Amino acid sequence: MSSKLIFLLLLTTLCKAGTPDRDDGYRLWLKYDLIKDATKRAAYARSTQLIVLNSTSPIQKTAAEELQTGLQGLLGKTVPIVASAGGKTGGITLTTNAAASLNSEGYQLSNQQNTITITGKTDAGVLYGAFALLRQFQTLQPIDRLSLTSNPKIQHRMLNHWDNTDGSIERGYAGQSLWKWYELPERIDPRYRDYARANASIGINGTVVNNVNASSRFLTAEYLQKVAALANVFRSYGIKVYLSVYFPAPKTIGGLKTADPLDPEVNKWWADKVNEIYKFIPDFGGFLVKANSEGQPGPQDYGRNHADGANMLAKALAPHKGIVIWRAFVYKADGKADRFKAAYDEFNPLDGQFAKNVIVQVKNGPIDFQPREPFSPIFGTMPKTPLGMEFQITQEYLGFATHLVYEAPIFKECLDADTYVSGKGSTVAKVVDGSLHQYPLTAIAGVANTGSDRNWTGHPLAQANWYAFGRLAWDHTLSSEAIANEWVKMTLTTELSSAKTITDLLLKSREIYVNYNTPLGLSRPWTGVHFAPEPWQNRSSRPDWTAVYYHRADSLGIGFERTAKGSNALAQYRPEVQQQWNNPATCPLPYLLWFHHVLWTQKLSTGRTLWDELCTRFYTGADSVGWLQKQWASVRKDVDSETFANVAGRLETQQKEAIWWRDAWVLYLQEFARQPIPAPFKKPERSLKEVKELVDIYQLR
Amino acid sequence: MSSKLIFLLLLTTLCKAGTPDRDDGYRLWLKYDLIKDATKRAAYARSTQLIVLNSTSPIQKTAAEELQTGLQGLLGKTVPIVASAGGKTGGITLTTNAAASLNSEGYQLSNQQNTITITGKTDAGVLYGAFALLRQFQTLQPIDRLSLTSNPKIQHRMLNHWDNTDGSIERGYAGQSLWKWYELPERIDPRYRDYARANASIGINGTVVNNVNASSRFLTAEYLQKVAALANVFRSYGIKVYLSVYFPAPKTIGGLKTADPLDPEVNKWWADKVNEIYKFIPDFGGFLVKANSEGQPGPQDYGRNHADGANMLAKALAPHKGIVIWRAFVYKADGKADRFKAAYDEFNPLDGQFAKNVIVQVKNGPIDFQPREPFSPIFGTMPKTPLGMEFQITQEYLGFATHLVYEAPIFKECLDADTYVSGKGSTVAKVVDGSLHQYPLTAIAGVANTGSDRNWTGHPLAQANWYAFGRLAWDHTLSSEAIANEWVKMTLTTELSSAKTITDLLLKSREIYVNYNTPLGLSRPWTGVHFAPEPWQNRSSRPDWTAVYYHRADSLGIGFERTAKGSNALAQYRPEVQQQWNNPATCPLPYLLWFHHVLWTQKLSTGRTLWDELCTRFYTGADSVGWLQKQWASVRKDVDSETFANVAGRLETQQKEAIWWRDAWVLYLQEFARQPIPAPFKKPERSLKEVKELVDIYQLR
Repeated sequence: MSSKLIFLLLLTTLCKAGTPDRDDGYRLWLKYDLIKDATKRAAYARSTQLIVLNSTSPIQKTAAEELQTGLQGLLGKTVPIVASAGGKTGGITLTTNAAASLNSEGYQLSNQQNTITITGKTDAGVLYGAFALLRQFQTLQPIDRLSLTSNPKIQHRMLNHWDNTDGSIERGYAGQSLWKWYELPERIDPRYRDYARANASIGINGTVVNNVNASSRFLTAEYLQKVAALANVFRSYGIKVYLSVYFPAPKTIGGLKTADPLDPEVNKWWADKVNEIYKFIPDFGGFLVKANSEGQPGPQDYGRNHADGANMLAKALAPHKGIVIWRAFVYKADGKADRFKAAYDEFNPLDGQFAKNVIVQVKNGPIDFQPREPFSPIFGTMPKTPLGMEFQITQEYLGFATHLVYEAPIFKECLDADTYVSGKGSTVAKVVDGSLHQYPLTAIAGVANTGSDRNWTGHPLAQANWYAFGRLAWDHTLSSEAIANEWVKMTLTTELSSAKTITDLLLKSREIYVNYNTPLGLSRPWTGVHFAPEPWQNRSSRPDWTAVYYHRADSLGIGFERTAKGSNALAQYRPEVQQQWNNPATCPLPYLLWFHHVLWTQKLSTGRTLWDELCTRFYTGADSVGWLQKQWASVRKDVDSETFANVAGRLETQQKEAIWWRDAWVLYLQEFARQPIPAPFKKPERSLKEVKELVDIYQLR
Repeated sequence: MSSKLIFLLLLTTLCKAGTPDRDDGYRLWLKYDLIKDATKRAAYARSTQLIVLNSTSPIQKTAAEELQTGLQGLLGKTVPIVASAGGKTGGITLTTNAAASLNSEGYQLSNQQNTITITGKTDAGVLYGAFALLRQFQTLQPIDRLSLTSNPKIQHRMLNHWDNTDGSIERGYAGQSLWKWYELPERIDPRYRDYARANASIGINGTVVNNVNASSRFLTAEYLQKVAALANVFRSYGIKVYLSVYFPAPKTIGGLKTADPLDPEVNKWWADKVNEIYKFIPDFGGFLVKANSEGQPGPQDYGRNHADGANMLAKALAPHKGIVIWRAFVYKADGKADRFKAAYDEFNPLDGQFAKNVIVQVKNGPIDFQPREPFSPIFGTMPKTPLGMEFQITQEYLGFATHLVYEAPIFKECLDADTYVSGKGSTVAKVVDGSLHQYPLTAIAGVANTGSDRNWTGHPLAQANWYAFGRLAWDHTLSSEAIANEWVKMTLTTELSSAKTITDLLLKSREIYVNYNTPLGLSRPWTGVHFAPEPWQNRSSRPDWTAVYYHRADSLGIGFERTAKGSNALAQYRPEVQQQWNNPATCPLPYLLWFHHVLWTQKLSTGRTLWDELCTRFYTGADSVGWLQKQWASVRKDVDSETFANVAGRLETQQKEAIWWRDAWVLYLQEFARQPIPAPFKKPERSLKEVKELVDIYQLR
């Protein structure tokens, strides 16, 4: 868009009456409200008099336009985009330099004599640099001595959308899918571009647009046209499109009798299909695959293994430089086995057997995105296989859209964990970023929390989780606090004291949630749709889909014994890790019940018995939501009124539900522990029967 | 909200940079953009210098605020709301007058010496008058001799939302449900108020918030709190809340062993439940019930009839002045019977047996919201039973959100149809508005097309259908054209020539759709989700859920014989109606195949054989979408650019799919008719097999 056009459009906006008067959150962290401090604006204005774009690259054009849009808002002035500075100083120059000491998407920002240069080795680097520069302005950083170099540590930084053909999202709590399949490819929702903008601004460069429980539809020409229309929008933001594939597609849409990965006809079908895809989408990213997992078909149906399946697809994609992302999230319906061990047991023997363009994508923990899990033992093995990380941004087990959980600490906890696979300091992050095992391919994925709700994420503060995922995918050494503070300043307020308060509240939110939801290493106490507490749930089509399978409460104690005395899942970790967790007396409390069945009367390091400690956590967790509410109330004056009310309303729901969780747990566990609620806590005002009745309401058809 | 606050908020809006620069359709027909013509603004300004509100009624307060908001936008000035004119002329006075010759919700608008008076018998009348006045301004009417009286012809003017607890909408094509059940009652989405504003502006005074395939959840205290929170928002807009109920709720949530409507315990349970509801919602409207229909349980499960079921609920609601709306949409799974006759057969014998606070709600046609149906024969009988109308606004059988179908002509066609029940002139409208049989209760419902999409209805022009339903519910004598023109001027453009073009395109859109979809009285040629053409569909769990059940094509001809030679459904109509439709030679072509199995070679009144006529309709229908596109292209300069592009994209999809429909029908029917495509039309470029493959894609899991 030309600068003139943008200016006219902005003018139109400014003159349009009747626009809703609230900040609806649509703009995310790309708000670009006018900087209030005139001195600051003047300082920035000195180095932003023009934008020099000497390139026909669509991505660099995007970079220039984003700068122009941002500066229009932040400084209230229209900065022209020009092909040459013509000797003038005081502008922003975009440039690529193939010889720069950067990796392929890194950037350098510098300011010399009031002239800012954004250098990338590639066009994408320039785009990321442009957003980084805007971030400097948005967070009111000094720029006169700007000198900043940044390289993404992981190559493929992706969102995974679990979105279905009918517009539903398998674990979505912010409306419907962003993708309007019935309208595509003819109608292009302007929101597709805004989605790409938001992602590019935090360095995300890939998106899997459909659910891992995939429909074959997406591999038909009819749907490839639709996907291509999205790819056409995303391309100039440096974002590639990937598809989840249904493994038996050769049968369901190819008319073949088998989907056996070693069958030549099947191989040919996939090769042809991939060729067809690349005709529609020349820069197609590749496939994400959920196979032989939770009812999805896969290579094992034909007596083959995961590597056989992945390698067949990899062979088809290789000529086009496409990749296969094969998920390690597998477990069998075996009530006697320990689900914790399943993925490791299936994948570890396959190390070194995957083709070069395959990444095995591993969930952060061994079970399934619980509020707290130990890191997956797979990260401590398989050095010959590129392992990608799968985090969940959407709050499937984190209270949907009404509980506040800032997730950067969850991501960091896993990334910073030491696997000891190559000695001390072998963190999960170093595995995933490839530095430990020199992976040729690296990847990190977040299961998206985006939906068609106006503010994208339902809970306004859940935007921070999308943001934090992107920032950590780029640079996992950033701290949770730094990211939170940056996001708050860009999104909510630049007032220092309120920004600090909100940052603090974000940082503490996850531990508060764990305390009332699953303290001390409890997990999976959920109803069917993962909404309400149901630790008593003991019937299901699969034993590992009950709650009692996980907590194993009995009259003596609670917890899943995973030492040699039990399932011995602990043996899947390196000895140094085992040593940390093996002894219940020294096992860190957050992981205690993950690995040990502990007596109710056992004294813990806190000085309390297990029962008392559990009660203390449930009660203080629930009480802490009151603290969150108070903190939020204190920032009212510095936050947009609609956003304020929105969050305040959700915190109220959270408070109510936190008490519900607390009551459900303590009343249920009391039937085993047969002990009173310890002072100073008061026993719940309702009975277990009443709690269960409330839960049952949410399960009524 | 005080005038000062509104003014400040508007100022804030005007100064907020970075707001998306497109008109996203959120404001619907309440746009209130500045009137361009300064002379016109000055003329209006003379009579809008203040708003005199001498009442503490929340509804009148709403009226005053809506006037203020509207005038702020339209005239660009803040009009103060004052308690007394203090002798000044030139203002707008809101007043109620119990003695006015109006019905309870009617209004009068008058202008004397530049002082406008809005008179209602009730507060609601004043609110409707305020919106009517704004409509005068929005459509640029002269107001100096304003003298307008209007009374709603039907008492209960309602939307029915087929919205589920999980946020899905059974037949929704514009995103998720507007109701955020997991957030309620604590978080109040500002959109709830905007929903109420839009409805009140067109006279809608009731809303059933949940699906007729109802969950018992809504009758629990937990959910009643949530529903009450919505009712609290809607109340000051004169809108009452109703609930769809699950008939066996006494069993599922009441713990009883039966839901038999004649069981005393069941009666008591409902009485108690209703008392509880009115504690939460003092002005609760009543229940909507789908019973013994499409698998829903009902009174027949206990050997009782519909009246028994309805009357039991009516008894519980009567003390609170609540009503029961009992749906007549029933049919059994009997392949040998004619579904057309089912509802009449079940309900006609019950005439006079329903309690006084029961309305039987009848779909406009005998089958199910097809693009064209004859009026339901039930409207021509049951004079002792108040019959309400159920229209479908959401485009379940009208191409979802990508086909343009302006529905006022569908509604009008039914309302204007003559049942002859009390002699000539006994139109369906006179049945429904109660004037024919002196009903004590009258009601009309539209199955909502609203969803969480930013523009509410997906297709921007589908907003006109919501609007038209409301306007016709208020006054069914309005013409489709007048409503379309009014809506266009309020929503898209006041430029006369373009407004006329768009009005014309709206008016023709339904006939165009019928031509390529179901011409000459064809019906129900749909795939499972009612998206793609599948006239060949012949397998289903029920015979009346196949396509071939409806069209009955064979080697000789096509159509469902419903004269005495066939099912004799025609006998359900009055003799005068039978006479119109009984003879295939004189039966109007739009209804021909509804009542007659006609030979392919039969010459029709058009001079063409049936086969040639069908082909002509399919082809001209599909071609006419090109005409729609051209017409739309011609208004580009007068329509907001984003809205323009949005509609243009959808028309492109419609064009593609219209050809798909055409090809599906002609290629499939050709297998029976064994005749060539008549000149000048060219045979489809694809084979029936290819068409079927395309359809199959949309049915892939």
